[in-house]
Amino acid sequence: MSSCFGTLYKVSTFGESHCAGVGAIVDGVPSRMALTAADIQTQLDRRRPGQNKLGTDRNEADQVQILSGVENGLTLGSPIGLLVANKDQRPGDYSEMNDIPRPSHADYTYRAKYGIHASSGGGRSSARETIGRVAAGAIAEKFLLEVYGIEIVAWVSAVGTVDSAEVDSSILTRAQVDSFDVRCPHGASAQQMSDEILAARQAKDSVGGVISCVCRNVPAGWGEPAFDRLEARLAMAMLSLPASKGFEIGSGFDGARMRGSVHNDPFVLKDGRLGTSSNRSGGVQGGISNGEPLCFRVAFKPPATIGQEQQTVDYQGNPVTLSAKGRHDPCVVPRAIPIVETMTALVLADLALIQKMRS
Amino acid sequence: MSSCFGTLYKVSTFGESHCAGVGAIVDGVPSRMALTAADIQTQLDRRRPGQNKLGTDRNEADQVQILSGVENGLTLGSPIGLLVANKDQRPGDYSEMNDIPRPSHADYTYRAKYGIHASSGGGRSSARETIGRVAAGAIAEKFLLEVYGIEIVAWVSAVGTVDSAEVDSSILTRAQVDSFDVRCPHGASAQQMSDEILAARQAKDSVGGVISCVCRNVPAGWGEPAFDRLEARLAMAMLSLPASKGFEIGSGFDGARMRGSVHNDPFVLKDGRLGTSSNRSGGVQGGISNGEPLCFRVAFKPPATIGQEQQTVDYQGNPVTLSAKGRHDPCVVPRAIPIVETMTALVLADLALIQKMRS
Amino acid sequence: MSSCFGTLYKVSTFGESHCAGVGAIVDGVPSRMALTAADIQTQLDRRRPGQNKLGTDRNEADQVQILSGVENGLTLGSPIGLLVANKDQRPGDYSEMNDIPRPSHADYTYRAKYGIHASSGGGRSSARETIGRVAAGAIAEKFLLEVYGIEIVAWVSAVGTVDSAEVDSSILTRAQVDSFDVRCPHGASAQQMSDEILAARQAKDSVGGVISCVCRNVPAGWGEPAFDRLEARLAMAMLSLPASKGFEIGSGFDGARMRGSVHNDPFVLKDGRLGTSSNRSGGVQGGISNGEPLCFRVAFKPPATIGQEQQTVDYQGNPVTLSAKGRHDPCVVPRAIPIVETMTALVLADLALIQKMRS
Amino acid sequence: MSSCFGTLYKVSTFGESHCAGVGAIVDGVPSRMALTAADIQTQLDRRRPGQNKLGTDRNEADQVQILSGVENGLTLGSPIGLLVANKDQRPGDYSEMNDIPRPSHADYTYRAKYGIHASSGGGRSSARETIGRVAAGAIAEKFLLEVYGIEIVAWVSAVGTVDSAEVDSSILTRAQVDSFDVRCPHGASAQQMSDEILAARQAKDSVGGVISCVCRNVPAGWGEPAFDRLEARLAMAMLSLPASKGFEIGSGFDGARMRGSVHNDPFVLKDGRLGTSSNRSGGVQGGISNGEPLCFRVAFKPPATIGQEQQTVDYQGNPVTLSAKGRHDPCVVPRAIPIVETMTALVLADLALIQKMRS
Repeated sequence: MSSCFGTLYKVSTFGESHCAGVGAIVDGVPSRMALTAADIQTQLDRRRPGQNKLGTDRNEADQVQILSGVENGLTLGSPIGLLVANKDQRPGDYSEMNDIPRPSHADYTYRAKYGIHASSGGGRSSARETIGRVAAGAIAEKFLLEVYGIEIVAWVSAVGTVDSAEVDSSILTRAQVDSFDVRCPHGASAQQMSDEILAARQAKDSVGGVISCVCRNVPAGWGEPAFDRLEARLAMAMLSLPASKGFEIGSGFDGARMRGSVHNDPFVLKDGRLGTSSNRSGGVQGGISNGEPLCFRVAFKPPATIGQEQQTVDYQGNPVTLSAKGRHDPCVVPRAIPIVETMTALVLADLALIQKMRS
Repeated sequence: MSSCFGTLYKVSTFGESHCAGVGAIVDGVPSRMALTAADIQTQLDRRRPGQNKLGTDRNEADQVQILSGVENGLTLGSPIGLLVANKDQRPGDYSEMNDIPRPSHADYTYRAKYGIHASSGGGRSSARETIGRVAAGAIAEKFLLEVYGIEIVAWVSAVGTVDSAEVDSSILTRAQVDSFDVRCPHGASAQQMSDEILAARQAKDSVGGVISCVCRNVPAGWGEPAFDRLEARLAMAMLSLPASKGFEIGSGFDGARMRGSVHNDPFVLKDGRLGTSSNRSGGVQGGISNGEPLCFRVAFKPPATIGQEQQTVDYQGNPVTLSAKGRHDPCVVPRAIPIVETMTALVLADLALIQKMRS
Repeated sequence: MSSCFGTLYKVSTFGESHCAGVGAIVDGVPSRMALTAADIQTQLDRRRPGQNKLGTDRNEADQVQILSGVENGLTLGSPIGLLVANKDQRPGDYSEMNDIPRPSHADYTYRAKYGIHASSGGGRSSARETIGRVAAGAIAEKFLLEVYGIEIVAWVSAVGTVDSAEVDSSILTRAQVDSFDVRCPHGASAQQMSDEILAARQAKDSVGGVISCVCRNVPAGWGEPAFDRLEARLAMAMLSLPASKGFEIGSGFDGARMRGSVHNDPFVLKDGRLGTSSNRSGGVQGGISNGEPLCFRVAFKPPATIGQEQQTVDYQGNPVTLSAKGRHDPCVVPRAIPIVETMTALVLADLALIQKMRS
Repeated sequence: MSSCFGTLYKVSTFGESHCAGVGAIVDGVPSRMALTAADIQTQLDRRRPGQNKLGTDRNEADQVQILSGVENGLTLGSPIGLLVANKDQRPGDYSEMNDIPRPSHADYTYRAKYGIHASSGGGRSSARETIGRVAAGAIAEKFLLEVYGIEIVAWVSAVGTVDSAEVDSSILTRAQVDSFDVRCPHGASAQQMSDEILAARQAKDSVGGVISCVCRNVPAGWGEPAFDRLEARLAMAMLSLPASKGFEIGSGFDGARMRGSVHNDPFVLKDGRLGTSSNRSGGVQGGISNGEPLCFRVAFKPPATIGQEQQTVDYQGNPVTLSAKGRHDPCVVPRAIPIVETMTALVLADLALIQKMRS
């Protein structure tokens, strides 16, 4: 509940923006797997603030420390404690939020829920909360790759009104995605997206975007009927991310406009196993993976905290003009790429372990 | 896991298409609540097959029996057992599926997962599995209405390429929704949608659609930060429904195209409390309800089982032409209305109970 | 929580003494296992009331019906619904309990908890609640026996002040246990115990007892460190049974009196694997099974409901003399034998599935 | 599962004997509660090694750091991260255990389970694992005391064959318990127990013991029927402690020898509410607290690691003589006092929050 995720590959996270540190405990990692901090650091580096001019000025090294569960470079099967210190804390930046709830931010709802909120507003709704997930998910990625050959690659497929040109997800690599700051692998599209983000930043505004994700080599048979369908777990994982507003798998909302005769994916023989010639199902049928690539998309709204003046009211209902201070991303999607990938890995690792009970 | 849902308002379901019955156990229903089978039957009647010419010919009375947890018309606080007998079973209709996996259906994935499948194909992926949820959720609806005044109303907002005209969700009632068979409350749109469904049926085809849902009077403060955000739980609930392919809350995928200055919902004073003048957030901020109506949409693909000939292969990979038999809906969205509502109620009832620990 | 048990082999139960029926949903049973109602009925028959003169006069056939999850005699992997109708209901017997809480019974605490209680007093604390567990556990027993060869045998090792003579648990069978009504396999001891129960009955009184249990052929490696140790799960399972007051494994409370040099179980070579020459550990070390037989004991208090006059007070605090009516066992341990066995099976089946994720 | 405990007051722990640190995440602590590290440190100090000559020579300061969830001395409602660094690590002491499984220790079972074990043998079965629990439970104690006035006091009631003289648990304080190193509040008994421990130590041996515990002011109505009875949760919590072998509540195993007419606790009027004149129930009836003090006892075996020579075999089955090195307690019960108390607090805090959903 709340800060715990997963049934067998189980993650608990802690930490908000301005405390001593953030991190996670990962329970359920198989024993005897090679693991070092460096294996985890790669994804943390991709998510950390201050990477380039498209993101926040907040600059955190975000070095992870493995506290437990690993000895001599091998996992023990016991819980893995992970810690990332908070260094560049400036809670003073947020003093104004004590009186005025930022529009579309979590300040107001946290106060409604807890009767108190952290100095940074909705502290636990901060992007820093995702560090524990990324660290925990990076271990899951390693497990999935080594045992099943699963590759998870996400990319930015839209920023504001700029949609990416078509990308061949069957061969896409993270290196290709990272070759542009905005993390869209199509050069021309990437340029337009960067311009869009910088324009928003220039206007003291923010902009939304869409992330697409593919998971290759997921075996058929993962996902549980009824409540824990593979797409249900993925949807939950994605909608649990700060600023996400939508999820679709395979044909998604477009599929709702189609007829069955067009939408159905015919079976064909592929390398001696059954596959499908199209993939409007997005890799799942009846909530269970079918061996085709998982394909889904996640919508992210524009960040709520903007420098522009906004007309709103304070907690007492008095009209005020708010120009938010603090250091924030004008667009979350470039840095959300590793978050989407690692959350996906958390879902898949858990379902992989659950499916083992049936073998 | 799998057939259990919820932390405190906890539902377990059982049953597939062609066994003795389907049902649920509901644990966590507050004691001393008035409850009869009739309170549950209303939503089951809205969901049952054979209501009109838009749906399947399968005709089930789907009468619910309360097995336990209620005495003299009052809940005891103990688990409520619910049973609906399966009556109109014709497993013989499906004998062909033993050899040929239906395209985009769960036949293949169930076999991959379990090494066996029910006589009706992916039996547990059958729409009948949702009966237990609807029954359990109908009790949750009663609880939410009586204690908090919460009203949950879903309606069909698209069938195939037909989008509904604008509907005022602030005053919409279930009676208005039910005044048209297709369950779109806008008469002209409803007519077009019905035509679309009948055309698909005529063509031995099927068609997808979209359901919109509003929840009014949800108090501020529900939903848990991090993994169990209100929208994450809703997304999981909706993507756990058969044939669903997408979920969006508030501005959803459209919001990804906006700037923050346009997207943000300014706070205003409403009846002595803080509210927002627009609702692109869809009633949640930072994963927690803000007191505005919850608004979300769910995309459903066209049903996979169609009478039209499809080119596919059998389990051995031999090319075959398949014309599915059996009785199926050409479009799921009209009958999915009560399912969406009751699943929503399951999510909200659970979060309501969780929030009580903070009071 | 409450009426759910297990992580992967997951059971939800429902039903109290005087409703339509009692039962369970079992989720997590492996697919393709042969299963019929008769497999389950055996243990229900051993637990049902009215077997002999040592128990209650209440007479219930307690025939189980499999509602779902099995087709053509094979499990499908989907949840198995189980239902046992309540037939011999006489709630009128308990009308007095509406005013007077029975001493050491759950009447008072249920009212404190729920503000209401069932017509039979603490309805859900009734022994009939265990029917769902026994049915669910009988399936677990079959799984454990077929896949691992695990044999679970419980027997009555004490009734009141009568302790059983030594029993060789390494070869004990259920048939031997059942050869005496009191379910103590040692004839002379069994006779004394029966006399003790009949004497208590004659005096309109009740008497406590102890059940011992052995599980043979449990593989080494089952049980989870920290909170879900094998003995922790067993202790929880046993203390969740009506009337149980104590649990000990291996040396138990006697072990607390020993020195380590006496208590430790030296390792020896047994059939090519490591075993121990003594078994004061009771089959677990550090919370994990070691391959030796699991051995534990459970203490049950005398039933609270007795015909003798008791001086107590009613809900208003007025002194009253109470002579309980209704039909009750003077001693629970003979009929609790299959309950202990099947609850043990629920614990082991769950840990077996969890351990599979490590293979 | 495994390293997580609780439904609403939820604890995850990490850490073994020889890693960087041990700790916990506590999720579910109510917001706006005053909390500092000092509140937690008191119980850690009572549990830390090296307090006196009765325990191990291992000397750890065990200073706790609050990583998150608290700001300006108040809880935020977000997860509280807790870290205690491991300082006095000497894994070299244990090199012998790589070849020889210590009798009655977890070396062998961990290897069977995980195929690997930590340098200290069953690292996660180490007493250091309990630090996270104690820290998490110390917060629970504060919550229970402040909101409900609940007092939890444990004491050593037996060491080896020395039983304590009668103690009046209705007024017992922790200060009285701590006035003797052995933590038995009865002076003469304490002296005998200390002698027993020192004699065992002198003989390079170890000795077992029993801890009794009382919880005063627990409201009536806590605990969930069926699987999560209050005593079931307590039994699980206690049997999850290293070296524990038995649990009994109220009359316990003695109760099994009694008749109902003797065992039943008659109701009486106490300060305007119903209470009982005796307390053989131990504060629970039907799995639910009745407002009387909770009273239970936990049996601990003698520590497995002893300096005396033991005849055993190595992993290959070769006979060896083992004299364990390393620094170990000759008796665990004095230092286990705060562990029993805080684990009890974890159980009660969780049930308190669950019961709030019924208010």
